[in-house]
Amino acid sequence: MITLAVDCMGGDHGPSVTLAACRQFLQQHPDARLLLVGQSDSVQALQHERVQHVAASEVVTMDDAVEVALRRKKDSSMRVAIQQVKDGRADVAVSAGNTGALMAIARYLLKTLDGIDRPAIATQMPNAKGGATTVLDLGANVDCTAEHLLQFAVMGSALVSVLQDRDDPRVGLLNIGEEVIKGSETIKKAGQLLRSAANRGDLNFYGNVEGNDIFKGTVDIVVCDGFVGNVALKASEGVASMISGILKQEFSRNILTKLAAIAAYPVLSALMRRVDHRRYNGAALLGLRGLVFKSHGSADALAFEQALTRAYDAARNHLLDRVRTRVAHAAPLLAASEHSS
Amino acid sequence: MITLAVDCMGGDHGPSVTLAACRQFLQQHPDARLLLVGQSDSVQALQHERVQHVAASEVVTMDDAVEVALRRKKDSSMRVAIQQVKDGRADVAVSAGNTGALMAIARYLLKTLDGIDRPAIATQMPNAKGGATTVLDLGANVDCTAEHLLQFAVMGSALVSVLQDRDDPRVGLLNIGEEVIKGSETIKKAGQLLRSAANRGDLNFYGNVEGNDIFKGTVDIVVCDGFVGNVALKASEGVASMISGILKQEFSRNILTKLAAIAAYPVLSALMRRVDHRRYNGAALLGLRGLVFKSHGSADALAFEQALTRAYDAARNHLLDRVRTRVAHAAPLLAASEHSS
Repeated sequence: MITLAVDCMGGDHGPSVTLAACRQFLQQHPDARLLLVGQSDSVQALQHERVQHVAASEVVTMDDAVEVALRRKKDSSMRVAIQQVKDGRADVAVSAGNTGALMAIARYLLKTLDGIDRPAIATQMPNAKGGATTVLDLGANVDCTAEHLLQFAVMGSALVSVLQDRDDPRVGLLNIGEEVIKGSETIKKAGQLLRSAANRGDLNFYGNVEGNDIFKGTVDIVVCDGFVGNVALKASEGVASMISGILKQEFSRNILTKLAAIAAYPVLSALMRRVDHRRYNGAALLGLRGLVFKSHGSADALAFEQALTRAYDAARNHLLDRVRTRVAHAAPLLAASEHSS
Repeated sequence: MITLAVDCMGGDHGPSVTLAACRQFLQQHPDARLLLVGQSDSVQALQHERVQHVAASEVVTMDDAVEVALRRKKDSSMRVAIQQVKDGRADVAVSAGNTGALMAIARYLLKTLDGIDRPAIATQMPNAKGGATTVLDLGANVDCTAEHLLQFAVMGSALVSVLQDRDDPRVGLLNIGEEVIKGSETIKKAGQLLRSAANRGDLNFYGNVEGNDIFKGTVDIVVCDGFVGNVALKASEGVASMISGILKQEFSRNILTKLAAIAAYPVLSALMRRVDHRRYNGAALLGLRGLVFKSHGSADALAFEQALTRAYDAARNHLLDRVRTRVAHAAPLLAASEHSS
């Protein structure tokens, strides 16, 4: 039995989306239990034999400063959900709330693993090979050292080996050229560390990759600092939404193009299915002594259910142990590098 | 009469593309003259009353290290083309060669303007409003200070006011959130500098923008360091090419989808036209005491002609004077900031 603690109040839509997703998720996963965390009148709307309700009187809003969420709202649904993981009552927590607050609370309550300075956020993006590329970090850390990038690579390898059942996933270092000499001093040093880690068998390092490689599917994991990752993710979303906007506009231009839209419908829906960001919803917070997954704030029920499923898969496949083992294996290198820096 | 010095040997395809583009460009621009720079037997293939040939015995290849291009190949077509600008024989130079080499040679020969530490590369990307967003820097500078970002903003404003005839183009600072408190220390300080510059009337600062705003068209100019800009550009190209790949695949799946492709052809070509990166080819190297434009290395004749046209427009509208004037106007702020940092 896998138990998920769900922050039912988080996200742009709150319980109307999260509870609908939970209901669907329970049907699909007969060995899952849910702890629905939130204000009693809201979460009681979903009754199920594998559901338990956990009261939390406060809600972290999307606009709340991290300090407010962390210090003042001590009975928030987000915090109480993570507390369930800390207390061993749940295997993983899932929230669609404010990313900064979620990261801060998770880090405060769960603490980081030995050998990890900073947790990272890892998400998947669709690629041209029909698979997905895992990218980290995505906004948790704006200034990263080479050592942090190495830690991300180790944790990302554990994540992909668990969620995509890849034994030896390939790691690429996001850079502005494939050549070893490219990039800032931090990136060059990260490249050296990743090569050393590969030589020691800690991970499978492909080398430098560029922004387009995320979508080509050149590697399984792309490592970058949170600033760059966030910009790459949002720029990509921007292009995809611009293209879909243009398609809508052009197909509705006149009666002929509208007929063409009907003819092209199967193709367009195949396209939408393949790049539908809802299918990739559910980012892992890695490097903590407990599992936490983050859904997009704007997720609908289908997307939130996807995040639940990903969290469930991670818990069932012992992601935490896998991360811990990989980090421990890389510990001598991590320690040596920290020491020398 | 506007005179362009064209590095005919640069790019993936060399004279077969550059000369074809030049021929077309001459037809469209009766008041333009071209100095065709390159190995004599190659460039002589284009004869025209407004064409003059300038011999250069060497070629900078795409793989040449910057040092090789700069120190050893002193008679390269790239260098000789820029020398024409330096010597006042041409108003602007255009090359599709190796970006790093082009930047290094341009900087070495032309020097930077007073008040500018580092030149930047500025390019346009299509946006959902049907216009284009100018983004800089795109790879010339991997580690930027807040002062550099301010310099980019000032130069980008001059570029857009010249090329798009906008009096007071809006500048956004690329960040991972709209709030002033987001981002690294460098970004926060850049935000402060940009606000001061706006208060002094040096530029029109919108505030922070995110990756997707590039394609939404929220602002006219997006300022970022070269690493982030390069990743954003390439990630965007990656998404666009993944989507076009999926469309091709799905439309060719069976006889029905192939018929649908015929029906949808006008719509698909409208889409392709609107996001065709060839239409946006021609990046400006800003901050030098002379005009240089860079074409994509993989440009075809249409794309290279676009770069020629952009360079021509820049020269005709006195981009260099406009950049110089704007930089001079912002000089007190630039100097004060450098001093305080």
